[in-house]
Formats: sequence, C-alpha cells, structure tokens
Amino acid sequence: MGGAVHEELTALPLVDHHCHGVTTGPLDRPGFEGLLGEGGRWPGSGLSPFDTPLGLAVRRHCAPLLDLPRHTPAEEYLARRADLGAAEVNRRFLRAAHTSVLCVDTGYAPAGATSPGQLAQAADAVAHEVVRLETVAEAVAARGVEPDAYPEAFRAAAEEAVRRPGVVAVKSVAAYRTGFALDPARPPDAEVAAAARRWLAHGGGRLADPVLERHLLWAAVDLGLPLQLHAGFGDADLRLHRADPALLTDWLRLTAGTIPVLLLHCWPYQRQAAYLAAVFEQVHLDVGLTLHHVGPARARAVLAEALEIAPFRKLLYSSDACGPAEFYALGALAFRQGLAGLLQDLVDADETDLRDALRIARWAGAENARRVYRFSDVS
Amino acid sequence: MGGAVHEELTALPLVDHHCHGVTTGPLDRPGFEGLLGEGGRWPGSGLSPFDTPLGLAVRRHCAPLLDLPRHTPAEEYLARRADLGAAEVNRRFLRAAHTSVLCVDTGYAPAGATSPGQLAQAADAVAHEVVRLETVAEAVAARGVEPDAYPEAFRAAAEEAVRRPGVVAVKSVAAYRTGFALDPARPPDAEVAAAARRWLAHGGGRLADPVLERHLLWAAVDLGLPLQLHAGFGDADLRLHRADPALLTDWLRLTAGTIPVLLLHCWPYQRQAAYLAAVFEQVHLDVGLTLHHVGPARARAVLAEALEIAPFRKLLYSSDACGPAEFYALGALAFRQGLAGLLQDLVDADETDLRDALRIARWAGAENARRVYRFSDVS
Amino acid sequence: MGGAVHEELTALPLVDHHCHGVTTGPLDRPGFEGLLGEGGRWPGSGLSPFDTPLGLAVRRHCAPLLDLPRHTPAEEYLARRADLGAAEVNRRFLRAAHTSVLCVDTGYAPAGATSPGQLAQAADAVAHEVVRLETVAEAVAARGVEPDAYPEAFRAAAEEAVRRPGVVAVKSVAAYRTGFALDPARPPDAEVAAAARRWLAHGGGRLADPVLERHLLWAAVDLGLPLQLHAGFGDADLRLHRADPALLTDWLRLTAGTIPVLLLHCWPYQRQAAYLAAVFEQVHLDVGLTLHHVGPARARAVLAEALEIAPFRKLLYSSDACGPAEFYALGALAFRQGLAGLLQDLVDADETDLRDALRIARWAGAENARRVYRFSDVS
Repeated sequence: MGGAVHEELTALPLVDHHCHGVTTGPLDRPGFEGLLGEGGRWPGSGLSPFDTPLGLAVRRHCAPLLDLPRHTPAEEYLARRADLGAAEVNRRFLRAAHTSVLCVDTGYAPAGATSPGQLAQAADAVAHEVVRLETVAEAVAARGVEPDAYPEAFRAAAEEAVRRPGVVAVKSVAAYRTGFALDPARPPDAEVAAAARRWLAHGGGRLADPVLERHLLWAAVDLGLPLQLHAGFGDADLRLHRADPALLTDWLRLTAGTIPVLLLHCWPYQRQAAYLAAVFEQVHLDVGLTLHHVGPARARAVLAEALEIAPFRKLLYSSDACGPAEFYALGALAFRQGLAGLLQDLVDADETDLRDALRIARWAGAENARRVYRFSDVS
Repeated sequence: MGGAVHEELTALPLVDHHCHGVTTGPLDRPGFEGLLGEGGRWPGSGLSPFDTPLGLAVRRHCAPLLDLPRHTPAEEYLARRADLGAAEVNRRFLRAAHTSVLCVDTGYAPAGATSPGQLAQAADAVAHEVVRLETVAEAVAARGVEPDAYPEAFRAAAEEAVRRPGVVAVKSVAAYRTGFALDPARPPDAEVAAAARRWLAHGGGRLADPVLERHLLWAAVDLGLPLQLHAGFGDADLRLHRADPALLTDWLRLTAGTIPVLLLHCWPYQRQAAYLAAVFEQVHLDVGLTLHHVGPARARAVLAEALEIAPFRKLLYSSDACGPAEFYALGALAFRQGLAGLLQDLVDADETDLRDALRIARWAGAENARRVYRFSDVS
Repeated sequence: MGGAVHEELTALPLVDHHCHGVTTGPLDRPGFEGLLGEGGRWPGSGLSPFDTPLGLAVRRHCAPLLDLPRHTPAEEYLARRADLGAAEVNRRFLRAAHTSVLCVDTGYAPAGATSPGQLAQAADAVAHEVVRLETVAEAVAARGVEPDAYPEAFRAAAEEAVRRPGVVAVKSVAAYRTGFALDPARPPDAEVAAAARRWLAHGGGRLADPVLERHLLWAAVDLGLPLQLHAGFGDADLRLHRADPALLTDWLRLTAGTIPVLLLHCWPYQRQAAYLAAVFEQVHLDVGLTLHHVGPARARAVLAEALEIAPFRKLLYSSDACGPAEFYALGALAFRQGLAGLLQDLVDADETDLRDALRIARWAGAENARRVYRFSDVS
C-alpha cells in the first residue's frame, strides 16, 4: 500500500470520535472469542469467531504487532497475547492506532474495562467522554423516582452528567431499543410520565419505550451537545431494518438548526446515512464498528458507498472499539487503507488532484471531528 | 478511457429522457452553490457544496470546457463562468452532453430557466415536453374548483395538458409527496372529492394527500402516455425509505398491460428498480440525477448494480439536469464513461462479444428511449 | 481465471443444497425464453429474455458445453439444444456443474421435470429431498379437512412427508406469500383453525394467510429438520421489501436453539442476511438463484457483500436451478469463479494465507452444507 495519500493518513493522528474501554484482565479463548463476535457467542457450536473476516484480520494485522508472523493460528495468537499481558497488548494496539483524541462512551464497557484516563494514557492521546443517555435514564429509574417526576428528573440527571469535565457529546441507542420509526414530535411531559409509570411499574431496567426514547432524544436537543446515534448494525438486540437512519428523517427535519447529529456504524445503510448528511446540515456519519468487522480488505468498498454523495466535511472516523484493544488498531488501519486507496485512485485517474485528496483525508481523519466537537475550545 | 465501447458511446447522440431547464441569468457563488447541493443549502455553515463528489467533478470535468485547467479552484471557476456569460456557458455544456433528444419536465425549473425551445437550440437537439401532474393538479386548485368537481377537473386539465404539441410523457413526484406505500386501488371519485375538500379547505397548494396522489397515478394510466416516476433520492422534502420503488409493486401489478412506467434516479434502490424492470414488462429505469452527484468516478459502480439483473432493453439515460448546465455535461460524461467501462471490461474478459456490447450501449443510450416514447412516430 | 483457489474449487464437488427438477421435454424458443425470465414473460413485446445478464451468460458459458462457439446467437443455440435432445443437454450441464449432492425441492417444478432420482443420475450425484411446506398445506386443503382439524392435520401431513426416505430439510416460501413481517409468536390452534376456516371457505388453493404461515413456520420448528427460507428476489408474486430477511429477526430470536435456518437467494438483501448469520447461531445464507441471474461477471460483487461480515461457516452453495439445466452449470460456474476470484485476491494481497483461503472455499462449497444437513449421517 503506497502513495502520497496513504503516507498522509499514516502520519495523521486520527480523532476517534466514538469508542469504548478495552479489557484489562486476562482473556482465555472463550473470553476473547466472546468479545470478537458481534452478538454471536455460540459456545459448543464448534464455530469459531476467528472464522470471520474479523478473525482473519486479527491474525493478519494484529499478530505482527505482537511480534508474531502474519496469519498466526488463533491458539498461538492467544498464547502470545496472554504472555505479553493485557497492559502491554493494549498499549501496543492503542499506539498502533495512532490516535490523538478519543471520545469514550462510558455508558457501555465490558467488565473490568479501562477508564477514559487509562485509555488516554495507553494510547498517548487525549480522552473525552460521551454520555450514554439510556444509561442516565436507567440510573434515574434505579435510584427511585415518581413517574410524574421522571421527565424533569431525567433532564436534570442528563444536564448534571454532561456538566462533568471532559464530556463532549451525548449518545443514544434508540436505534436498538425502539428503532428510528418514532413519532418525531416532542412528547408532552404528561405522556412521558405515563410511559415512565408503565416502565417503573415493571422495575425500570432496560429502557425500550418509544415515548421515553423520544423524550430522551428531545432532551438531547436541549442539552445542546452533539448527539451520537447508532444506526444500522451493532448490538445483538436490534432489528436491523428499524435502524435504517432514513427512518429518522422527520425528526431530523424538526430538529434542523439545533444540535449536530452523528450517525455511527450505518452499515448496511451507509448510503442512506450519506443521503441524510447531504441533505441536512447537522448530520454527519461514520462507518465505525463496520471497519474492523469487514476488515481492511473490504473497508474501501464500504467507504466508497458512504462517500458516493456525502459532503467530504461530513465523514468522521470512529473505531467503536470495545473490549479487545485489537479493534483500535484494526479500525484505524482499515480506515487509513480504505480511504487512502479510494482517494489515491481518484488522484491516479486524475479525477481529483493530490492537494484536494490530502485535504479530504485530513478532514475525515481528524478535522471534521475537531469542527463538530469544537476541540479547539475544549482540548 | 479508451476502447471500442467508449468510442461508440462518445459518438452516439444520447436521448436524455428526463431533464429540466437551465439557469439563464448570472450566478454568484451563493447562487451557484445553492443549485449544486441536493437539498443542502447551508449558508453561513462554512461548508461548501464544492466539497462533494459533485464539486470535484465540476472542477475536474467542467473546468476544461470553460478553457480552464483541470481541478480549477471554485472561485476561479465561477469567475470564468461569469466572464463567459450564461448563454455561452450553457451552450458549451449542452453541446458537450451531445444529446439528440431532450424530454423536458416543465413542471419544475429554477427561476429564469430556459424553455424547452431555448434548451433545444442551445443543445442542438430536439426537445419534447414532460407534464408534471402534481403541477397540473395544483394549478386546478389555484384557479378555483369545487371539491366535487375536482376529480373530473383534474382529469380534464391533465388531458388538455398532454394534448399540447410536443408532450411525450407525464410525470409524478408521488415518491416525494406521499411515498410509494399507497393503497394501489383506484380511488372512487367520492373519496377523491372528500380528499380534495380537505386539501382545498387549506387553500390547496402543495399536493401531498395519498388519495389525491392515487387519483393522479390512475389518471396517468388513463392518459395512456409513458409515466415517469421519481424513485429514491431527489428533492429535499422526501423520506428516502418511502421512495423505495419496491413499495409500488402492487400498483405495478394492477396496472400491468397499460402504460410504460419509467423509474427515475432510483439510488440507492437501483437494485430494487432493476428487479421491477426484470419482472414487469412495463417498467424501465434510469440512474439520472445520481450520475452527476456521484460523478464519473463512481457512476460505473452504480450502473453495475442497476444492470445486475435488469434486462438491457430497460435501462435508459437521463441527466435530470436542472439549473446549472454543468449537470448536462456531467451526467452524459458519467453515463458514457461508466457504461463504457463496464461493458468494455465484459468484452475484455470475453463475457460478451463486442457486437453485443455495442448493441447494449446503443440501447441504453438512445434506442430504449426511442422505443418507449415512440420517437419514430413523433419526432 | 487461474490461481490455487480456483483450482481447488474446480476440483471440489459442490453440495447444491437447494435446487429443482429440470425440463425433460423439448423447448422451443418461447418455451425456453419463458423459463429464462424470472417473472418476466412478455410474449409479443419484442423483448427477449436473452437480452439480460443471464442471456449473455447462457450464450457465453453454456454454448461451448453444446460444442458451439462462445456468444452463439440465441437461434443457433436453441437449434443445437434441440438437436442434442433434452437428455443429452441435461446430462452435459448437470455434469458440468460437478456436484456431489443435490437437495431437490420437489414442491415446485416445471411440467415434465426430472424426479430427484433422474436428476441424481444425470448429475452423477446423490439426491436428497426438500419438502415444501406450503405444498403440503395446500394438499391437506385439497383432499378436504375440517377447519378445526386443520392445525393437527397439517402437522401430521408434514411429519409424514418428512418421514419419507431421503428427506433432509423443509422449506417455506413465506417471504413470497405473506412477507416476513409476521407476528413472531406461535399462533394458538384456535386462531389457526379460524384462519383455516376463511381459507377453506374460499376453496383453499394458494396459501397466503399470515396466521397459516406462522403455523407452518412453527410446525417446521417442531419437525426438527433444517428449514430453508427464500428471501429477497425470486418468484414473480412477491413484494421485494417484504422479503427482507431482517424482518424475520424476532422470529429468529424466539426460535434460537432449535432448528438450522437457511436463507436462500437473499439478493438484494445479502448484507442483511449476512448480519443475521453473524448474530444468530442457527442462521445460514446462500446467494442461490442470484448467481445465474447476475452471471459469472457479477457473482463476485454479490458474494463479496454476502461475505462482508458473515462467518465463513455460514455461507452455503445452492443453484436454485429450475427448468433449463443451464442454470446448474451457470450457478456452479458463477459460484466457483466469484468465490475463487475474491479469495485469491485476498491471498494475493496477503490478507489471508492460501491454507485459510482453501479452507473457506471448501466450507462454502461443500462442508458447511454437510455439517448443517448432517450428511455424514444420512448419505
């Protein structure tokens, strides 16, 4: 992989605008495989999560970072990983990602995962925090609240959560809890209270009520911070077709002119997400999570679809790494190789010139995120 | 870009079966940028519509047609454009498109746009007219009609509109007004009158009622002319997922054996459109509008999906150019390069022979449209 | 087409886990063309099903198997086909497919099609049988049943059908009859009886009732055999968007841990199918039918999407050939060329090593099917 665009992206420290903590404890084979699969954890099936595009990519691209040959078998890979220990493994992969800023979703992390501070140190990067609003809501329920007080209690808790130093964005998993086919209107507090009553009567827990999700999304608008929204594939509890970001169109129209919205993952709806980014000023997209799952070999095809009509100021980078630190290295590698391959070919075909291609690379790799999150102000 | 298929397509005058007028007045930077973005017009955002695949394509492929170097910066491009004046600019781009026939949608055009006649002259082509049925309906409402008289008044107005010389087709933007998930049955006049009553009580205006749209689509069947239907992305007021042409299946089944239906744009549902074209005799498709938005660099990928299963007699060319004459040149270029690249590779891989490849190129570029619109009869 | 992966796949006898009988009688041009088009049969239109990617592939890849030059015109192709006779033609194409096992859906076949035994002999393969459950249900209705007795009568008939020797799976066309957006819960017998009453009151016939389809799908769970489910494009009576396999998510969640589910065709939702295969242990996919329709030239692109995130143990091969024996040869060729091209490029780019690539090829071509259908036990 060569060319000037690739060199630029290799040298460029990425802004990873959505990620999670990495595992700090030892990982045996079932433990590691359980974190490899997105939803698929099938002990006893004889099927290994290593036998996936992601598994091939780990053995190909991560093994050399642990001083192993390319394509090292899984057993040997895990043995070496255990020998080095989690701290050293995490440090290597996080450094390999070559990231300057990490926006860490602290609302979801595997047991014993790194804090943002630990992550920042291992990566030699600045860490910011992203507040997951469903986690805030569930905590409000868990500590006890009257249904009528819930609308205001959630708003207050969210405001308090984002006032903590280092918080740069909020996030919702509405796509996975209810899907995006929601009534776009802001629900009146009485309706929210009634929904909260039903939810709390069942002991609270996992928030998956459409009225409560709408309340949460509109609260995000009031908070004024950028809102990250998962779209497309991701958690195992989703219904993929309900996570098509096009379903959010009416809500985006109603909230135009308020907060930046960042569509995460998007696959296989990256074209739909790109359309929204082309039409709505506030909408941005990334193909995080997708990148390490499809691997460097296929990242370019997905990025090409994401960039078919999207404005170049709207594509961001995120790893959505969570658990094994490998995902940090793989996401960054797939992004750099995929985007560089795509842009370099445009230059080679004289469809654009190198100056523009380099600018697009820097925008997507770092500067778009700096603009959206106003990092010149806070970091 | 070389090869026999490319030569054939370069020499072939295209039939552009769906397009609009071009701007005749001067365009300053905000004015030009406002016409570049599909929906996205974000003054003050610091985001320029030039920073898109379309913007790169303008600077790469249109600049030389204005005697500028490739990749000319936007400012210089617009300065040169202003120096030459709209008439010369339009003439250059329209000639570059090398089109023999233009089917001009006169129901929507930017202020001060060319008439079909002016367009024909600038392009050295024959211009026909496409009647936009929503515009007809809105005109019926605007000049005053009793709700009970609306069903018949609309039919009469549509019949009168298509009786004008040069009209070869009608068009509906149902995809953007209500989406395609409509009850497929022909609505009884009483139901149409009731819907008209609600519409007219609010002063008429933008037609977006599902019953009135159904009435309009069935009126198109009665008119007997080919019906152009936008599908997929396009106007800024749409909900993308409702413009999936697959949603129209039941209506297409009910109206099989009547009028030709031409699905326009289709992106990102070009595969769905191709499926319909494969299953229904009356259905055809193009990837107009898409072509200049994705640019020549990506047109081939989109065309490849559109042609995965589609009969070769079902793909047509349209630019859907509207506003800047650049879109005429870019649409034609992207179509020629994309289709030629795709077909030439098939020939080079011996998946087809050159004779068949050239035939497919001529069909898609001109002959399929001539057959559907019976141009041997009317032009 | 060269390389070690291609050699491996060429040498590997495929397991074709879903196919149909082939025509045994003579086929004139209208007859052959009628079987070429998927739904599109347009006599008198002047449009020939030969003018499709499938038609090009027949003339390119099947002609040489009848001792004709590549790209032979349709007339000469059909004349030679008639001269050789159906038996010889079928034998040539079935042998060219180089298949060791055929799982034949006996619930749908063109008039005068081969039996599984005849197919096995012509192909020099072992034939198993797949029971189409809608056919079983329709037969129960046809021979007369009281609505209240229907739920049990269908279950008994299905159990009897699968107890016949050689039956290895059941199949449902729910995607085409009702679509997948069904209530996922098992319907109580009283509800099934009520639906049967409505159905039988109209004389039974084509089963397309959502409650009866749910009953059928849950009966499949009780039968314990692998369940084949069409998804995406296929029969002409479908509504494509309702055949998106993502719509089946809730049912797959409810039935996890029971029977293997095999999503057939999937196009254009191969990414959605791959997602389900990644998330649910029991879900597998193929791109059968798609392969011969898009042809060898485009099979790789479709397979690449199907394999973007899918576990390599989840992709199977099927031809879904039905009618002309050409489809057996073309499906196998497109699968071998597409998968080999894709894997060989991964090897050449050092994204995987040859050993892994060969293993993936064997899995997809044969071993995944052997595992799912437990062929070591029954064949």
